[in-house]
Amino acid sequence: MNESDIIARLRAHFPRIGDDAAVIGRQVITNDMLIEDVDFTLSIPLELIARKALAVNLSDLAAMGAKPQYVLIATGIPASVDAMQLTEAFIKAANEYDIEIIGGDLSGAEKLTISITAIGESDRPLLRSGAKPGDRIYVSRPIGASAAGLYLLQHGWTLTDGPPTVGYATKEFALSAIRRHVDPEPEVALGMKLSAIAEVTACIDISDGLSTDLHHLCEASQCGAEIERERIPTFPDLLGSGNALGIRPQDVVLHGGEELALLFTSSLRESELSARAGRPVYAIGRVTKGRDVLLNGEKLEARGFDHFRGGGAAP
Amino acid sequence: MNESDIIARLRAHFPRIGDDAAVIGRQVITNDMLIEDVDFTLSIPLELIARKALAVNLSDLAAMGAKPQYVLIATGIPASVDAMQLTEAFIKAANEYDIEIIGGDLSGAEKLTISITAIGESDRPLLRSGAKPGDRIYVSRPIGASAAGLYLLQHGWTLTDGPPTVGYATKEFALSAIRRHVDPEPEVALGMKLSAIAEVTACIDISDGLSTDLHHLCEASQCGAEIERERIPTFPDLLGSGNALGIRPQDVVLHGGEELALLFTSSLRESELSARAGRPVYAIGRVTKGRDVLLNGEKLEARGFDHFRGGGAAP
Repeated sequence: MNESDIIARLRAHFPRIGDDAAVIGRQVITNDMLIEDVDFTLSIPLELIARKALAVNLSDLAAMGAKPQYVLIATGIPASVDAMQLTEAFIKAANEYDIEIIGGDLSGAEKLTISITAIGESDRPLLRSGAKPGDRIYVSRPIGASAAGLYLLQHGWTLTDGPPTVGYATKEFALSAIRRHVDPEPEVALGMKLSAIAEVTACIDISDGLSTDLHHLCEASQCGAEIERERIPTFPDLLGSGNALGIRPQDVVLHGGEELALLFTSSLRESELSARAGRPVYAIGRVTKGRDVLLNGEKLEARGFDHFRGGGAAP
Repeated sequence: MNESDIIARLRAHFPRIGDDAAVIGRQVITNDMLIEDVDFTLSIPLELIARKALAVNLSDLAAMGAKPQYVLIATGIPASVDAMQLTEAFIKAANEYDIEIIGGDLSGAEKLTISITAIGESDRPLLRSGAKPGDRIYVSRPIGASAAGLYLLQHGWTLTDGPPTVGYATKEFALSAIRRHVDPEPEVALGMKLSAIAEVTACIDISDGLSTDLHHLCEASQCGAEIERERIPTFPDLLGSGNALGIRPQDVVLHGGEELALLFTSSLRESELSARAGRPVYAIGRVTKGRDVLLNGEKLEARGFDHFRGGGAAP
């Protein structure tokens, strides 16, 4: 039993299920739940927890190419958390992301629980299912930092500091990675641009890890993929400082979750797509006719995050 | 600090907040979260937990007079709960309520957590804010059973049995009340009918208790209310059997939550409104110009459920 069995069962009854968000006409709707000690700990300030809870939902809308408009926020709040402070954090984050809070629910709980529903719209929602053999496979930005940051937080680092023995450059890298983990940026502007480029054929956000999300995209599009390790853009200094800190760069790049980078496909070449998107995007391989997902010619297993098997992405 | 302070703070920034559901054009959207050991226990079968989680959301749509269409279901599932069995329970409940599951989220959790977003539509969404002085105040059906059922479950009763010393009629009452608590029926059909009757001016569902929800309606409508205890329809045999079982009938009727009955206002008389609704509805008093909420001439305190103060509705 794992997550994909459950999604397959739901899809058999409700075919609209299975993308990053549901499409109803021009409207795109998603929801995600974050739970204390599963998805975050209270060592992170409420302001960042609120921002990230919004960000993971906006990232699902970004993957559909939608413009975010509204959110509903349901919270289960333990006695140790100041409910008004959390409310202020959500108001601030919503204003920063320029979205309107239109409703929600408040409840007591043992663990801080945040369930957000985000609603946006798009003239052409991007789906996971449109990739065609021959399309190039793209990643929107360098990846690997989120899982590296999580590893560091679990190994003695805080948001602002680490072991005194670590050198300046390594510390810079570590704090950047931690920041990327606790305050990831959804690719909202890029998603909207990609939605307007007819040659972009499929899109998903990297939330479970590149390997797992590439499998998701290929399954939905009934295709395979060949990607090259050397072409995957990697977070700056991950190879150098990462190794020194005990992180396995290859693993966090291939399998690290919560990146919120976009993974997408297009018939356009890298230079043309970057020009039309108005920023660099990174071609990492090609869509193939078969069903295999290959990395440098070898089978790439989906070793990212499964919400019931837990873990994966172990750096 | 309580729930209404937080809602007031949110409303100051986001004026659409504050009704049972948010209105975007013809669309009506709500979400509610249920958490194990706060809102239910795992002594209740998953099938009923799933039905109730849907029901409380559909009740919010019913209060807006909307026809339910879609739901997104986010679940945090502990190891002790069979995720596939819960999935089957949601599929069954959605089919019974004739709504489409369009998305959701799956996560591990220590306590079973269910957050549902429900979407419906209405040509004329009913708000809490439309009540006018002189309008009659209505309750849609006899109330008091849900809190009575909760009390019994907390005092040795199960879904199917209680102490052997209890007589036949009392046992019938007790099991009916328990059933009403674990499997409450949202007033979807009535809500849609009321939405089509122009003389229905305001509506809310009784989820926090009659006293609290009447205060909510009066605050939103900037009016007061005078209701009469003798006119409030009471669940059959609550007065007789309830007392014998240790329940305080007056308290569960006035302050018991999770009834999912509708509380609404209209200029129409009881006989005419019942005829046009196609079923009995119960006038319990009048909307007034002042801001007091009175029961038989005395101030009626809002003693129903506050999600941070907890309790209320203590039977």
